[in-house]
Amino acid sequence: MFFASDNAGPAHPEVMQALMDANAGYAMPYGADVQMAEVTARIRDIFEAPEAAVFLVATGTAANALALATLCQPYQTVFCSPVAHINCDECNAPEFYTGGAKLTLVGDSHRMTPEALQTAIAGSSPSDVHVAQRGPVSITQVTECGGVYTLAELQALCRVAHDAGLPVHLDGARFTNALVALGCTPAEMSWRAGVNVVCFGGTKNGCPGVEAVIFFDPAHAREFELRRKRGAHLFSKHRYLSAQMLAYLTDDLWLRSARSANANAKRLADGLALKGAQFEHDPQANMIFARLTRAQHQAAHAAGARYYLNDGPLDTGHADTRLSARFVCDWSIQPQQIDAFLAAI
Amino acid sequence: MFFASDNAGPAHPEVMQALMDANAGYAMPYGADVQMAEVTARIRDIFEAPEAAVFLVATGTAANALALATLCQPYQTVFCSPVAHINCDECNAPEFYTGGAKLTLVGDSHRMTPEALQTAIAGSSPSDVHVAQRGPVSITQVTECGGVYTLAELQALCRVAHDAGLPVHLDGARFTNALVALGCTPAEMSWRAGVNVVCFGGTKNGCPGVEAVIFFDPAHAREFELRRKRGAHLFSKHRYLSAQMLAYLTDDLWLRSARSANANAKRLADGLALKGAQFEHDPQANMIFARLTRAQHQAAHAAGARYYLNDGPLDTGHADTRLSARFVCDWSIQPQQIDAFLAAI
Amino acid sequence: MFFASDNAGPAHPEVMQALMDANAGYAMPYGADVQMAEVTARIRDIFEAPEAAVFLVATGTAANALALATLCQPYQTVFCSPVAHINCDECNAPEFYTGGAKLTLVGDSHRMTPEALQTAIAGSSPSDVHVAQRGPVSITQVTECGGVYTLAELQALCRVAHDAGLPVHLDGARFTNALVALGCTPAEMSWRAGVNVVCFGGTKNGCPGVEAVIFFDPAHAREFELRRKRGAHLFSKHRYLSAQMLAYLTDDLWLRSARSANANAKRLADGLALKGAQFEHDPQANMIFARLTRAQHQAAHAAGARYYLNDGPLDTGHADTRLSARFVCDWSIQPQQIDAFLAAI
Amino acid sequence: MFFASDNAGPAHPEVMQALMDANAGYAMPYGADVQMAEVTARIRDIFEAPEAAVFLVATGTAANALALATLCQPYQTVFCSPVAHINCDECNAPEFYTGGAKLTLVGDSHRMTPEALQTAIAGSSPSDVHVAQRGPVSITQVTECGGVYTLAELQALCRVAHDAGLPVHLDGARFTNALVALGCTPAEMSWRAGVNVVCFGGTKNGCPGVEAVIFFDPAHAREFELRRKRGAHLFSKHRYLSAQMLAYLTDDLWLRSARSANANAKRLADGLALKGAQFEHDPQANMIFARLTRAQHQAAHAAGARYYLNDGPLDTGHADTRLSARFVCDWSIQPQQIDAFLAAI
Repeated sequence: MFFASDNAGPAHPEVMQALMDANAGYAMPYGADVQMAEVTARIRDIFEAPEAAVFLVATGTAANALALATLCQPYQTVFCSPVAHINCDECNAPEFYTGGAKLTLVGDSHRMTPEALQTAIAGSSPSDVHVAQRGPVSITQVTECGGVYTLAELQALCRVAHDAGLPVHLDGARFTNALVALGCTPAEMSWRAGVNVVCFGGTKNGCPGVEAVIFFDPAHAREFELRRKRGAHLFSKHRYLSAQMLAYLTDDLWLRSARSANANAKRLADGLALKGAQFEHDPQANMIFARLTRAQHQAAHAAGARYYLNDGPLDTGHADTRLSARFVCDWSIQPQQIDAFLAAI
Repeated sequence: MFFASDNAGPAHPEVMQALMDANAGYAMPYGADVQMAEVTARIRDIFEAPEAAVFLVATGTAANALALATLCQPYQTVFCSPVAHINCDECNAPEFYTGGAKLTLVGDSHRMTPEALQTAIAGSSPSDVHVAQRGPVSITQVTECGGVYTLAELQALCRVAHDAGLPVHLDGARFTNALVALGCTPAEMSWRAGVNVVCFGGTKNGCPGVEAVIFFDPAHAREFELRRKRGAHLFSKHRYLSAQMLAYLTDDLWLRSARSANANAKRLADGLALKGAQFEHDPQANMIFARLTRAQHQAAHAAGARYYLNDGPLDTGHADTRLSARFVCDWSIQPQQIDAFLAAI
Repeated sequence: MFFASDNAGPAHPEVMQALMDANAGYAMPYGADVQMAEVTARIRDIFEAPEAAVFLVATGTAANALALATLCQPYQTVFCSPVAHINCDECNAPEFYTGGAKLTLVGDSHRMTPEALQTAIAGSSPSDVHVAQRGPVSITQVTECGGVYTLAELQALCRVAHDAGLPVHLDGARFTNALVALGCTPAEMSWRAGVNVVCFGGTKNGCPGVEAVIFFDPAHAREFELRRKRGAHLFSKHRYLSAQMLAYLTDDLWLRSARSANANAKRLADGLALKGAQFEHDPQANMIFARLTRAQHQAAHAAGARYYLNDGPLDTGHADTRLSARFVCDWSIQPQQIDAFLAAI
Repeated sequence: MFFASDNAGPAHPEVMQALMDANAGYAMPYGADVQMAEVTARIRDIFEAPEAAVFLVATGTAANALALATLCQPYQTVFCSPVAHINCDECNAPEFYTGGAKLTLVGDSHRMTPEALQTAIAGSSPSDVHVAQRGPVSITQVTECGGVYTLAELQALCRVAHDAGLPVHLDGARFTNALVALGCTPAEMSWRAGVNVVCFGGTKNGCPGVEAVIFFDPAHAREFELRRKRGAHLFSKHRYLSAQMLAYLTDDLWLRSARSANANAKRLADGLALKGAQFEHDPQANMIFARLTRAQHQAAHAAGARYYLNDGPLDTGHADTRLSARFVCDWSIQPQQIDAFLAAI
């Protein structure tokens, strides 16, 4: 009954086995391993993007910060949601990697709208040398509040960006959870919608630590490579990154894992609804933000459940008071654990 | 017969097994895993430094750059050897992480001397606001040319630094190879000699990718932690770093691996001497820089040996011309491979 | 009838004469000129701060960015108003100089309140390594919308900052305009209220280009000095900065100039009120934000008046439609010009 | 008898008068002043470069650092002389402005040779992601040791740079002193020789503080402008920069001043030679590096002469011991002062 984060679950046994298998003999370092060539081919195939440049790093923050630094000049600003990971959870990594660019927060919602984006962009004039210049638009899919942009929504956001001449970055730490929720293709959810670079997450969906950065325009490749090295994110024994990603993309493991996580989240959401929970956001992938009574939280806690409580305290106060919590289902959680949790509350 | 780099060898099976063992159930993310607590305790014990702050990162460049950034202000300069990894092989990572500090190259040798260090430090006056201010001294042990500083040499370098009020960083990517070469204790080769922060390598000595940064003064801990996060080097599934380092420090694996590498390098050096090789540097750990004839290189190459040739071309030219090469022995190389190589040339 | 900006007016003849007077013979460069010693003594005296460290730079952005960089670590955030000059008008200079710190926008008003500041500070937890850490609070006095914080308001803001352990920066590009509006002493409007560093403007109040940065705690002096040099803001022929500031502080020129500007702004505001103008903000110093009819703007324009129109277009549309404009009075404007302008509309 | 620095002399009365003249009425801020348009036209004319982009800043360090930042990526290195101002006298400003680029020191002489430059460039391979990538070449004319590159030398250096695809920056803090020494045209000493951007100094040759940055390829203009603003080097009351530069370029003041300085330096050098001085470098413009006896220095000092003594101490030691000193002649020094100095020693 661990719902704290998909960062905390184990890696999938198939990924671990691939790590073991990769551990034979010598391999060329720094990305010249044979597995990396396979990873690139696989991702190009999956994304229907035969020219795409593909790079691996070990953390989602590295993927985001390096991708943005490649797209953004230090005198520009990145347009993002106020709750974006790049704004709230990366301790200024984007500012660091871009050399001091700014983040402009778009609207006041966790879900970016084309109108809010248009307004934010219009707020800075490219002819005015005093203001931060317009830089890339960053979209998070799945959002930090568990929502999934539809293809039409993604397209509309990208259109606003492109109309202003701005590139689009997709923070896809939970890319596959969104993909299976929408039931579309990776191409549709990325370059066909107008996305220029995708951070394609593996870590939250069953890998020990690997993210792919995918530039659909390979002109960015060399700069990214140099920034990755300069950022100390180029692995010498790179095969251990490649092996993770390769296993992740083999036999649909990425899709199987995300489907399982999403299905269990749905099972949990349905059960919570029956228990009277109030949802703060519509749960569309593998994260649920809901308000339960203090009594329910106390029962869950007593039964061993673990998750983040946004309100507090748990221990003292009226039993009927509702406290907000986040529940995340990772690939490894089982229906029995969902049911046990629901039974407990 | 792979002598290209200790970056290219496999990980030790005991480390890989530890990764598998760590992959059970949920674990607290971002360094709060139980293995990390053990790693810290183990390192404090090994270094006889009960207060030391210990952090793990995945690459040696990250360890160096983050450690230096914590010690160095952007208006200062780092004193290092002209051949230091931080100067030659990190694509400006130290300059990036320090926010634009400079590297001052000490002397013109791969081996820093107290006299050259003294001269370099004296070259910048702390009262002069126009010059880069004096910052940390960085020493590499094993040096990039395969040498090992004696304890007396380390102490003398640290004394020069401390007399000028400067802290000392030790790039210990091959710390253990130096340690077993000297036959001393980790404390003697670090804080007892005057070193303030050690980058303690695991990757080149049998781990997939892990380095420990050890501050003997824990006052630096919080800043390092924030810089690590901001640099995107804090792993969410941190247990996979901890498990590597823990296995590395278990049952003397770190020492066994380094002893094996050094012993095989000695076997190789002794054999090369018999074959008439000219040594460019005295091989003191697991790296050999030697000049063989073109004919010898051609024979080695034909037999399947792999290593970096610093001169060229291999194919055309007089058979007796000597070409310089680097041979590195990693933990996994076997005496039979050494012997086969020697037989081939 | 030039109300576009106090950046566009001439320098005061007394300042220009001082520049001429300073231009005799040789003078020690880089701030070692005799005039600078006098400037420091004068500012310490005026601010009743005998220990203060005083530095001169040529632009307000340099003063702000360097002062903030001295107070703020790159993994921290600066708390400021959404309309602060450091956020809107410096093209990421604070992000650049701090090495990639963030700006956290406090509330949604041009006037920072203690409550909004408290909320903003509470939004980031010092124990959370993932978020930008709390850094300095930056207050603008006169605000970008022409308001002046009372001493009680300043004290309350500083108290919130200090209670969280945060230092306070005052962007005083129009410090003297605020001072004469409040009728208080410089000490009361700075360190006695809790301000730690003041950027004390000269440029907008009659100097060609000079701003003083005043640290009440001299412990920051050396770092600021090095950052100023590294930022290329240390003048070799520094006497031409000193001479400006010295003349500015001689015979109350700074006070005379600000009083004149404020008095003319009041004359203008009173006149505008009679003409039916709607004020967007209460004009408290030398800036007025008011809505006039298109017909009034057209008449003013035809009469040769110059100022920024925030709405548009001027030429086409209903004559009665109100358009927002900013009117700034500099030290050099004369009552006759005010009256001529009022007559024109 | 002030030979300490051309930074310490007064400004030329014609420049000061121009400042006074510019101080009438209102002027558009931030470089939109009418004088700036004249400056641009004048410089384009003088340099026979009708497309050149021209910008003014107040310090030579700002000119150099901003120009280099525009040409250099943060993962690149700038090739320069070990004694270059950008390396020795700017407290890491180039590293700061470039976002952490490196400086690679070319050769071990104050005078860069094409061979040494070729060797330095060859030392870093563009295909190697681990090393700092090749960036701009920076040449100082007049060198820091008082030498002047011939046109043939400049051309040869630029050819080496361009053959490697690298742009060339000219630090021309003493551009005009070199120009009159060579007796060539500005075009010949810049773009015709292969220079891509010139920092054209005014401060050391009779202005209070102004330097022009001249890009012969205007494609760099917008980026430079944004970097200047972000670096806090865009003056609001910009007319006071423009007026200086305009006066400097009027009636050949720039040439007259440099000719006077050079002529007096020659008079001084000739006199020193007669007095038995040993020259450390051949004095080719307005700087002399010479060794006089301690007795001579003592006599000079007693007579009131001021200059930098590189050796010491002055007071104690053998009277015949030679001590090294730097003598700089600025525009304002007079033959009588030279003669008085020579008489004193």
